Amino acid sequence: MNEINWSEAEKTVADEALQKAYDREIKTLMDEVRQKAVEITDIDAIWRLHDFLSAKRHEIEGKYDGRYSVLIFVLAQLLKEKWLTLEELQGLETDKRAKIAALARM
Amino acid sequence: MNEINWSEAEKTVADEALQKAYDREIKTLMDEVRQKAVEITDIDAIWRLHDFLSAKRHEIEGKYDGRYSVLIFVLAQLLKEKWLTLEELQGLETDKRAKIAALARM
Repeated sequence: MNEINWSEAEKTVADEALQKAYDREIKTLMDEVRQKAVEITDIDAIWRLHDFLSAKRHEIEGKYDGRYSVLIFVLAQLLKEKWLTLEELQGLETDKRAKIAALARM
Repeated sequence: MNEINWSEAEKTVADEALQKAYDREIKTLMDEVRQKAVEITDIDAIWRLHDFLSAKRHEIEGKYDGRYSVLIFVLAQLLKEKWLTLEELQGLETDKRAKIAALARM
């Protein structure tokens, strides 16, 4: 997979898709945190919120890796988690889109 | 300080004071978390909330140490942070209360 080449046009499509997925995931996370905070009635709920944020931070910081060498995998993961649709990857070569779609089904 | 003896009556006073301080601190923490959550408008605010909870968890888990060998110091800390008043330590020997009050001023 390492030898995959990205044209400048494809890089733009991929970067925009990554940003779109990130914005969606963050918006959902903000809604979740607000909701969890409203429901806090005891100390355990606070520490559960803390654990939740620790996990999310680790996950999000690791996931949005913009290096082109791993972008196929990153986009596949985002597709699998439904932060992106395959339609939003229009503009990538057919071959790349097929690889991304296949990985997303794994 | 290690040779301080606690009568059963004093242990009850100290345990109740510890519980009272804990309940107050937790209630304040819950209010703070709810308030911070309401104000979340970007990802940085989420990670700031996470950092805040990490620090609070570490602090609270360390602070409420109910071992009688360290209780003078624990109560002094709670007095200093205003989670307890000296009046709420009525029932402890005068000498202990004086030590706690002196440590709280340090």
